[in-house]
Amino acid sequence: MNDSGVELLAADLSTDRLHAALRDPALASMNFLNEVASRFPEALSLAAGRPSEEFFDVDDLPRYLQIFCDYLAAEKGLDAERVRRTLFQYGRTKGIIHELLARNLACDEGIDVDPESIVVTVGCQEAMFLVLRALRTDERDVVLTVAPGYVGLTGAARLVDMSVRPVREHADGIDLDHLIEQIEAVRAEGKRPRAFYLVPDFANPSGASLELEDRQRLLAIAAEHDLLILEDNPYGLFQAEAGQRPPTLKALDPSGRVVYLGSLSKTCFPGARIGFVVADQRVAGANGESNLFADDLSKIKSMLTVNTPPVAQAIAGGKLLEHDCSLVKANTREIELYSRNLRLLLEGMDRRFPRGGDHQVSWNTPGGGFFVVVTVPFAADDAALEYGANKYGVLWTPMSHFYDGRGGENQLRLSVSVVSPDEIEAGLDRLAMLIADLSGKEASTH
Amino acid sequence: MNDSGVELLAADLSTDRLHAALRDPALASMNFLNEVASRFPEALSLAAGRPSEEFFDVDDLPRYLQIFCDYLAAEKGLDAERVRRTLFQYGRTKGIIHELLARNLACDEGIDVDPESIVVTVGCQEAMFLVLRALRTDERDVVLTVAPGYVGLTGAARLVDMSVRPVREHADGIDLDHLIEQIEAVRAEGKRPRAFYLVPDFANPSGASLELEDRQRLLAIAAEHDLLILEDNPYGLFQAEAGQRPPTLKALDPSGRVVYLGSLSKTCFPGARIGFVVADQRVAGANGESNLFADDLSKIKSMLTVNTPPVAQAIAGGKLLEHDCSLVKANTREIELYSRNLRLLLEGMDRRFPRGGDHQVSWNTPGGGFFVVVTVPFAADDAALEYGANKYGVLWTPMSHFYDGRGGENQLRLSVSVVSPDEIEAGLDRLAMLIADLSGKEASTH
Repeated sequence: MNDSGVELLAADLSTDRLHAALRDPALASMNFLNEVASRFPEALSLAAGRPSEEFFDVDDLPRYLQIFCDYLAAEKGLDAERVRRTLFQYGRTKGIIHELLARNLACDEGIDVDPESIVVTVGCQEAMFLVLRALRTDERDVVLTVAPGYVGLTGAARLVDMSVRPVREHADGIDLDHLIEQIEAVRAEGKRPRAFYLVPDFANPSGASLELEDRQRLLAIAAEHDLLILEDNPYGLFQAEAGQRPPTLKALDPSGRVVYLGSLSKTCFPGARIGFVVADQRVAGANGESNLFADDLSKIKSMLTVNTPPVAQAIAGGKLLEHDCSLVKANTREIELYSRNLRLLLEGMDRRFPRGGDHQVSWNTPGGGFFVVVTVPFAADDAALEYGANKYGVLWTPMSHFYDGRGGENQLRLSVSVVSPDEIEAGLDRLAMLIADLSGKEASTH
Repeated sequence: MNDSGVELLAADLSTDRLHAALRDPALASMNFLNEVASRFPEALSLAAGRPSEEFFDVDDLPRYLQIFCDYLAAEKGLDAERVRRTLFQYGRTKGIIHELLARNLACDEGIDVDPESIVVTVGCQEAMFLVLRALRTDERDVVLTVAPGYVGLTGAARLVDMSVRPVREHADGIDLDHLIEQIEAVRAEGKRPRAFYLVPDFANPSGASLELEDRQRLLAIAAEHDLLILEDNPYGLFQAEAGQRPPTLKALDPSGRVVYLGSLSKTCFPGARIGFVVADQRVAGANGESNLFADDLSKIKSMLTVNTPPVAQAIAGGKLLEHDCSLVKANTREIELYSRNLRLLLEGMDRRFPRGGDHQVSWNTPGGGFFVVVTVPFAADDAALEYGANKYGVLWTPMSHFYDGRGGENQLRLSVSVVSPDEIEAGLDRLAMLIADLSGKEASTH
């Protein structure tokens, strides 16, 4: 052991000499949840929010690659050497499946965008980082986000030292009056509200969606208060009943205020790590010139990951091409599975906690997506989670983990994405026993 | 057109309201070089530093995937469902080919590391970002880097608003006395020199390498001055003569001061976008606990890209496995090609600019890698580059682009990585004509 070396090194590398994001409670909270799950591997998990694994097939991968290569040759007119180069070499920073993503947005979401305004990213997480990095110039820049909200947004904000201000959700979506209050409060402090982040369809963790009128009002608020909207849409395609969902904010947006964040993690598969951002805003330069906001994001990306792995893009591109660029078509089986699971979960809750009973248990009824939020008459905290995992063999997620501060203390999130019908039934039985136990009542099983 | 909306938006999104990195000259400089190359597509390029494309084969990709799946099953004991999940699902933040990379470092570089200290990243660029993000806590943290140096390091530093201080190179490598001067100057300003970044083997852009004695002295300086060393090694395997290269700093490091940055872009292929960082330092926490620095980098990665695409890792992993985890073995043909090209370039320069002539042209003789630096008796600037591209059909890189400030004004970088022997000969003929023209002499062709 080299005394001086090791001791000096230990002095240099100590947590308080590293970036503050590493001491963020959000990180500790994710670690805690993963750690509980790993300590109770036999527990039934109504916590895991990853997509279904039922339809993954390793044999698909070479076929997707081939389909994409054929597209490069047939549609883009590349010879064999340039096809090879496209997959193997460094490439376009904004990506190589931008045209396919533009087709996808047109056919599945009614969103028409110039493919040049799309930046393909390493998951949606990188897209969030790029946008927040671009917008955060100094400590006065603030991003607003729905609470309860997606921890990834908060994490990206931490990495660029950007303040996050919460906006309340209520039973029917987002409290837009609170949004206005928060915008005004931020301005009153001499700060700049730059953007409002939300998942308008079947949000994680709440499952909530924004009504059409609220979408229109939100766009008007953004215009009036000079705010960008960051619309994240990972779950939109998984509606329980086709045709019930209002258009995306991006499709409704008259003035180009919406930056659209996309993820193929749920609609293609997470292991491709393909996300994207549509940033078709114009950015005014110093000398009367202007450029696409996407090109600024691309510059940042060139300093961060250079470009999204072309081989991963090719695999996602092949899957898109195989289904005429419709992810609705590509996800016929998944949409059916998630809808069925959501229905079974809601019916199962109805049977165990009948309306009008004295159980003091309530829940929302999302129109799609992976998640349902249950309100219980006790603290649904980390201790309750561990207690239930240990005594009843069931896992769920305390909603308090989705608040950057206080909130959700007596709520829990249930997820239906990676469970079978039998597991839903058994999981709800166990959950009902836990709820009865902690409420001091007897459980009503189905 | 919505007047209020569009006008307010234009006011909000203007370059001066976006992060300062977007106004960085380094970015403009890369754009300029790419733009010149695209304006003269017929010019012979001694500028492009990407790896050779000669051995890329699309048919390799499915085989690599299969080999990696077989490894998961046979060596890691995963059943078919878990193999599928490993490739398709979200996964371990630190990556899934860490054990293969550790084997590779052991067999190719004599570096022994715990696989847990490796974080697999989206190219080496993300690895640089993770390390600088961790180290930059406030405006007093400074990173030192060799000048001329790799623009990616400066780019990553810009994204975290970290000051970069240059350290001079001289003919035999790095000016370590200047390093000490710079460390002391930084401290004298009340700032903290946190790390020194360098490429000790066949650097980009200079081709220079650090002698063994200088490596040992550098490690001693780092220990004395409480500094981390960020060792980047993308070209080390491409030595012109096997066995000539001193050990890496990481292999020589007695006290764990070296954070090792790896890239498979040149040794596997760029389109996989696989890099990694070895961070086996211990970080002291608040309450007497400690953790691997790699685990802190992993936390930052979880907020940035979540994890490196498992499908891309699987492809790189398959290539590693196919060659017993030796990238020297995997690159037999490439090593031969780059060595031959480097030799041809140096011989070609010798013939055109004989020693003792009055041409005032000199160059270094790197022991490997992709790059040679030529000193000329005129300003090798952007105007000279455009002039040469237009009049003589030859491209090269002005060395001034690799300085974050002044430097390299009469030097140019030549690259041998993507040219054939004939292109080297013809390119040097054209370059000799340009040099003669701008020196006011007659060219001596081969």
